[in-house]
Amino acid sequence: MKPRLVLLRSLCVLLLAALAAVAQDPLPSWNDGAAKRAIIDFVRTTTDSSSSNFVPPEQRIAAFDQDGTTWVEQPMYTQIVFALDRVVELAPKHPPWKTTQPFAAVLSGDKAAMAKFTMKDLEAILTAAQTGMSVDEFQAIVKDWIAKARDPRWKRPFTELVYEPMLEVMRYLRANGYKTYIVTGGGQDFVRAYAEQVYGIPPEQVIGSAYELQYTYNKAGQGVLMRPSKLLLNDNFSGKAEDIYLFTGRHSKAAFGNSNGDQQMLEYTQAGGGAPLMMLVLHDDSQREYAYGPAHGLPDSTIGTFTQALYDEAKSKGWTVISIKNDWTKIFAWEK
Amino acid sequence: MKPRLVLLRSLCVLLLAALAAVAQDPLPSWNDGAAKRAIIDFVRTTTDSSSSNFVPPEQRIAAFDQDGTTWVEQPMYTQIVFALDRVVELAPKHPPWKTTQPFAAVLSGDKAAMAKFTMKDLEAILTAAQTGMSVDEFQAIVKDWIAKARDPRWKRPFTELVYEPMLEVMRYLRANGYKTYIVTGGGQDFVRAYAEQVYGIPPEQVIGSAYELQYTYNKAGQGVLMRPSKLLLNDNFSGKAEDIYLFTGRHSKAAFGNSNGDQQMLEYTQAGGGAPLMMLVLHDDSQREYAYGPAHGLPDSTIGTFTQALYDEAKSKGWTVISIKNDWTKIFAWEK
Repeated sequence: MKPRLVLLRSLCVLLLAALAAVAQDPLPSWNDGAAKRAIIDFVRTTTDSSSSNFVPPEQRIAAFDQDGTTWVEQPMYTQIVFALDRVVELAPKHPPWKTTQPFAAVLSGDKAAMAKFTMKDLEAILTAAQTGMSVDEFQAIVKDWIAKARDPRWKRPFTELVYEPMLEVMRYLRANGYKTYIVTGGGQDFVRAYAEQVYGIPPEQVIGSAYELQYTYNKAGQGVLMRPSKLLLNDNFSGKAEDIYLFTGRHSKAAFGNSNGDQQMLEYTQAGGGAPLMMLVLHDDSQREYAYGPAHGLPDSTIGTFTQALYDEAKSKGWTVISIKNDWTKIFAWEK
Repeated sequence: MKPRLVLLRSLCVLLLAALAAVAQDPLPSWNDGAAKRAIIDFVRTTTDSSSSNFVPPEQRIAAFDQDGTTWVEQPMYTQIVFALDRVVELAPKHPPWKTTQPFAAVLSGDKAAMAKFTMKDLEAILTAAQTGMSVDEFQAIVKDWIAKARDPRWKRPFTELVYEPMLEVMRYLRANGYKTYIVTGGGQDFVRAYAEQVYGIPPEQVIGSAYELQYTYNKAGQGVLMRPSKLLLNDNFSGKAEDIYLFTGRHSKAAFGNSNGDQQMLEYTQAGGGAPLMMLVLHDDSQREYAYGPAHGLPDSTIGTFTQALYDEAKSKGWTVISIKNDWTKIFAWEK
């Protein structure tokens, strides 16, 4: 072949390779930038057997917070919406609720009173909504609700308010041998009801807050697991680091969060050494989603609080802050 | 070809197939009998997509108790031997132990006193041996001990006192898409230190009794998980059914135990419906291993108690009792 033709052929090969690389972009909903680069570098480094930071396949664990990290958490955590709906549904069986707080406020739709609910009020509502039944009954209740409920802003099922860029990260990690876990302050059994369908994550890879279980027998003498009202695991703050270890006996190699409740999970991921990936989603897009912080001068929020102190820790420790506004070309799969 | 040659060839084909089947026996250390048949029938039925009892691959979970089910538990649980050794090792740092029970009995080797230890005494020894350090330190301590310790009867590492027939069952189940779990009343982190090497079971598939974890920081400011002395999970009796659900959100489809502490795990496996497999190992071979019960008239034992009531429940509910004497051609891999 003539030298010029050889050159042309080489160019074509390069071009095809480049096109293939573009076609295979594992993170198409991400703008090119530090965040996308951090994810791709992490996967390359930890799956390259010649790298000193290579992670053997069996140790590849990635942990994702849910509320505010993989789906929308404003204006109210989805699980709280579920619990409020359920209080309304159960009210006929509990006449005293009409005159007992916090239930009375929920039943009369008193939004001013509900906005002032304390943590204790919310716990009372969550307990009333989520305990006293068998684990199988609870799964059925959540599945039924999640199929019917709609969020107030987009009028869509909550399961469609999942962040497409994070689904891409999950798929990309799994394609590279990572086991993806949800590690949520929300209820473990609540999330398990839809995690397989929504995230492709099986129930045994969902770690969350959990009530104690109680073994008993039904009328046919068969074993049944009931949900009494005593909390066993509070999977927030240090609980996230503790429960990942409790469930897996390992450090996660990548951890994704968005609020102060994820701090220790990211710290403990980093403490595992190697070249781990720690990322925090910053909600700074009031147009397409919500903007809250107060990190980076965003408005305060009691839901998904991301303080300036956490932001500073991220910067000082080399964690990557994901800007929804700048890093995500698309937030939801159904966006045009 | 002449008819006779065709016949000869057919016979050869059949013979080869038969030989291959023998060569491929997944359970070579099992005598042909009801127990072996139950295991093979279970695998055939639940992996046959045309069966009404087909189990989708993601739901294939099999749970194995450890002490007395997958390895020897007599004359004393291995973890207790570990804790006693560790009390001796730690004694120089705890001078008061010399005159405080139950430690004094251990340090003076007073076997009569040790034989009378109450559950509270044992808990004090386990707590002293197993708490107060980080999770990483504890892993290192167990790995170090298990490599060096020898059992009193066979003078072998405890990890060689694993039942070869049960390892065959684990491999056979895994080859058919089952995830094998250890579900032990013993310490979750103790078993995780060697489960991968001994059973091929990764730490995230070891469920056991567990202390609470406590997140703190080391001098370098890195996150560390410590082991304080408060028990979080008591993975015995109903705890086994509860913790399988806590960790996996599923019913196990097969469950293997050997004592009253496994009763609820087997019951709850059966309550999941389909064609589940429930098996109990009966230690009835005083020659090759140990004989204890008191089921079936065997001598009483406080370790691995298998009462007649449990035996009767097994018979009435269609669970399979494995007789070590009659069902296992070989107990340990190193036997001739």
